[in-house]
Amino acid sequence: MSNKKLVDSITSRSEDFAQWYTDLCLKAELMDYSDVQGFIIYRPYGYNIWENIQDYLNKRFKETNHQNVYFPMVIPESLFQKEKDHVEGFAPETAMITTSGVEDLAERLIVRPTSEVLFATHYAKVIQSHRDLPKLYNQWCSVVRWEKTTRPFLRGKEFLWQEGHTAHATEEEAREETLQMLDIYKDLGKEVLAIPFITGRKTEREKFAGAIETYTIEALMYDGKALQSGTSHYFGQEFSKAFDITFQNKDSKLEHVYQTSWGVSTRLIGAVIMVHGDDEGLVLPPYVAPDQVVIIPIQGKNSEVVDVTNNLFDELKAKGIRVKLDDSNRSPGWKFSEYEMKGVPLRIEIGPRDIKNVIATVVKRHNREKLQIPLKELSSKIPEILKEVHEEMYEKALDHVEKNIRIAKTYDEFKAHLDLGGYVKLSISGEKAEEIIKEDTGATARAIVEEDLVTEICPVTNEKATQTILFARAY
Amino acid sequence: MSNKKLVDSITSRSEDFAQWYTDLCLKAELMDYSDVQGFIIYRPYGYNIWENIQDYLNKRFKETNHQNVYFPMVIPESLFQKEKDHVEGFAPETAMITTSGVEDLAERLIVRPTSEVLFATHYAKVIQSHRDLPKLYNQWCSVVRWEKTTRPFLRGKEFLWQEGHTAHATEEEAREETLQMLDIYKDLGKEVLAIPFITGRKTEREKFAGAIETYTIEALMYDGKALQSGTSHYFGQEFSKAFDITFQNKDSKLEHVYQTSWGVSTRLIGAVIMVHGDDEGLVLPPYVAPDQVVIIPIQGKNSEVVDVTNNLFDELKAKGIRVKLDDSNRSPGWKFSEYEMKGVPLRIEIGPRDIKNVIATVVKRHNREKLQIPLKELSSKIPEILKEVHEEMYEKALDHVEKNIRIAKTYDEFKAHLDLGGYVKLSISGEKAEEIIKEDTGATARAIVEEDLVTEICPVTNEKATQTILFARAY
Repeated sequence: MSNKKLVDSITSRSEDFAQWYTDLCLKAELMDYSDVQGFIIYRPYGYNIWENIQDYLNKRFKETNHQNVYFPMVIPESLFQKEKDHVEGFAPETAMITTSGVEDLAERLIVRPTSEVLFATHYAKVIQSHRDLPKLYNQWCSVVRWEKTTRPFLRGKEFLWQEGHTAHATEEEAREETLQMLDIYKDLGKEVLAIPFITGRKTEREKFAGAIETYTIEALMYDGKALQSGTSHYFGQEFSKAFDITFQNKDSKLEHVYQTSWGVSTRLIGAVIMVHGDDEGLVLPPYVAPDQVVIIPIQGKNSEVVDVTNNLFDELKAKGIRVKLDDSNRSPGWKFSEYEMKGVPLRIEIGPRDIKNVIATVVKRHNREKLQIPLKELSSKIPEILKEVHEEMYEKALDHVEKNIRIAKTYDEFKAHLDLGGYVKLSISGEKAEEIIKEDTGATARAIVEEDLVTEICPVTNEKATQTILFARAY
Repeated sequence: MSNKKLVDSITSRSEDFAQWYTDLCLKAELMDYSDVQGFIIYRPYGYNIWENIQDYLNKRFKETNHQNVYFPMVIPESLFQKEKDHVEGFAPETAMITTSGVEDLAERLIVRPTSEVLFATHYAKVIQSHRDLPKLYNQWCSVVRWEKTTRPFLRGKEFLWQEGHTAHATEEEAREETLQMLDIYKDLGKEVLAIPFITGRKTEREKFAGAIETYTIEALMYDGKALQSGTSHYFGQEFSKAFDITFQNKDSKLEHVYQTSWGVSTRLIGAVIMVHGDDEGLVLPPYVAPDQVVIIPIQGKNSEVVDVTNNLFDELKAKGIRVKLDDSNRSPGWKFSEYEMKGVPLRIEIGPRDIKNVIATVVKRHNREKLQIPLKELSSKIPEILKEVHEEMYEKALDHVEKNIRIAKTYDEFKAHLDLGGYVKLSISGEKAEEIIKEDTGATARAIVEEDLVTEICPVTNEKATQTILFARAY
């Protein structure tokens, strides 16, 4: 029976944040480990969070005229090596298929870590004229990167994501696309995940292998560390020249296309856990929660309670709310803890006394606020309360970010701020300063701040400062 | 420019059905080949057909309490070998990851050809009590099987599918599940694909590696060949014993669970093409078509025509119809051929004369029927007409099946019928007869017919007949 033992309690966040995180991933049944290190099983409760993210993004992608496609999961090794910067960035960590079991393959096949080269090859074949542009493709799939250190959702040998790959006739249009997708990701945070993402451009050192510019959405976790939660890349003509993707422009001249790519992954599930969770368990924002409301009957054998709770369940379901009715034999107390641990945004308690008083108790998971709502108004009020919960969670997370951006004018001040957690704004000379900071403190450049310099001189190298950066320790 | 050449015309079906099929797959932009033989690119028009199938099935799966999950794409070689029959069925055709590029793996990883062993391993861990049952999981993913001969959608080294894997407390419940999912697949044919599937049980020789019983949905292609289009398996306790998946039943006794699995794949896209297509191109059933209606303005510069067609487009879109307005500079004639080739179910033509007469011409793709519909009634009538088209297409396909089921009492009669295409019903003694038939004619047992025997003696072996089978040549 030893392999059947489940985690029984959650470590507190202050005691060991990393342990709290993995305890929660397992106990809330978001995932399980498989027999291969770094490959996880997305259980229904975890996978459904991803499906809710997919629904939102698919809607936004379609509104902006993107089309879904599916490309092969393998890339011939020789093809992968065609764009130099790209292969240098990815080569150390690619799984390879070398045999069909019966016979060895003539060429090793890389299991896609990302699909730029596949899209580029296809685009070279199907794009001929400006009339074929833009191509606005997106694919949902899993990718494989041979990471040594892995952690559920945050870093895995395999993860789920979407990767958009687009080709355009002009630089301007491609740059607009890059920023448009960054905005959609920011909206995903604001409207669905209740996470205020900081958006910005990455430094040369931190940008994607092969990109001219990489834009990022960064989230701040409860423990003060940052998490890169999605990226949008402008490639210019780097890939189109390497793969010869040309089109006849309106003046009948042959030109290379301008490209972008952008993606978010199941890492967002990790962000949701670490931004909102508390010592009792998950706290899920309503628009991403698999169950938005749980109804718990008090004295569940009472026939009036059965009727009222069943009716309420039907009414909420008819309104499109993701509702669960737990009429099992467990005690109300057990159920309260269980659904708190699972992070269900609202709990509705209804017992015989409530029915007599014609009210129900509604409890918000994120701040434990208790509301007394007349029974008759319940089903019409719940959508509003869910919206309220979403907004309160967003505001709380925003407040956490705002309180944790500090400005440093000296390197000592920088280090002291860093130890408080959160972001530190610093003006630096360039890549050399980034490397010293990484070496000394473990912090990395999260995003370039498009503002005036904090200091004229870089406090790290004593050279002339050229840009202001938000630094943080990060996952 | 040679690699940019596109297919310009479609071979006719009677001339070369196989060539017609691949011409169409490419020219209708359903797919493209990649650089690795057997791995195809699902282009937007092809992938969207799959998305429409997914939408229908996800709805039906959820109504029947199934939950989506995602399991790893790799299986350790040793784990794969745990269920003997299963590994024998799959071993010759599995791709293996053996290296991360930098260092060889301690154990070879099989890229999943199907995921029974992964689900079984997880179920062994998380199922403890009858309260944990049933587990009704489904996953959408791609799988890899190292097929030598490949053909777009029909047989590939990689394909997309859904695989359901369930665990139950009783044999009865698991058997019900197996048949319930078969029914849902049959409904998919009837309600979405306009394909009348023949459903039935597979023979011992044809069943899935490791299953006790395999049920199948079989479709009849235009050329008279059958296509296995989906399967639902009852496993009994085969896997639960091999993987030790036990639970405490209501009497507190330890029992092994009863399991099922079931799946359909992107092969269904091939079925849609080959059941409905004609010499002008694709003919798509309305509920699976990426575009259900195309509006083609005649004299598209005319401002009245612009207004009327734009309004119609908005109205149809608001009704949730997938509509396209082609107001490009191409000639109406070019557009007619283009959308016929792409199989758009309905074409609406509107020109200045139509506006004067307050009517529009609506043309059904599948039978070229032309309808004159008053402009005012158009947007309300279109949903009805789409339904009509769906039903007519289904009836036509059903008629094709019914006319192509023949009964044979002698082996000569069997062979003669077989050469006409379609199914031949024959009573046989068993596996030996199946093997002789396969050897002599290339035909295989598609499904067991649950009826009285046609003959008491098997015409192939002259032994006592034990079951009646639908035979056909198949893809």
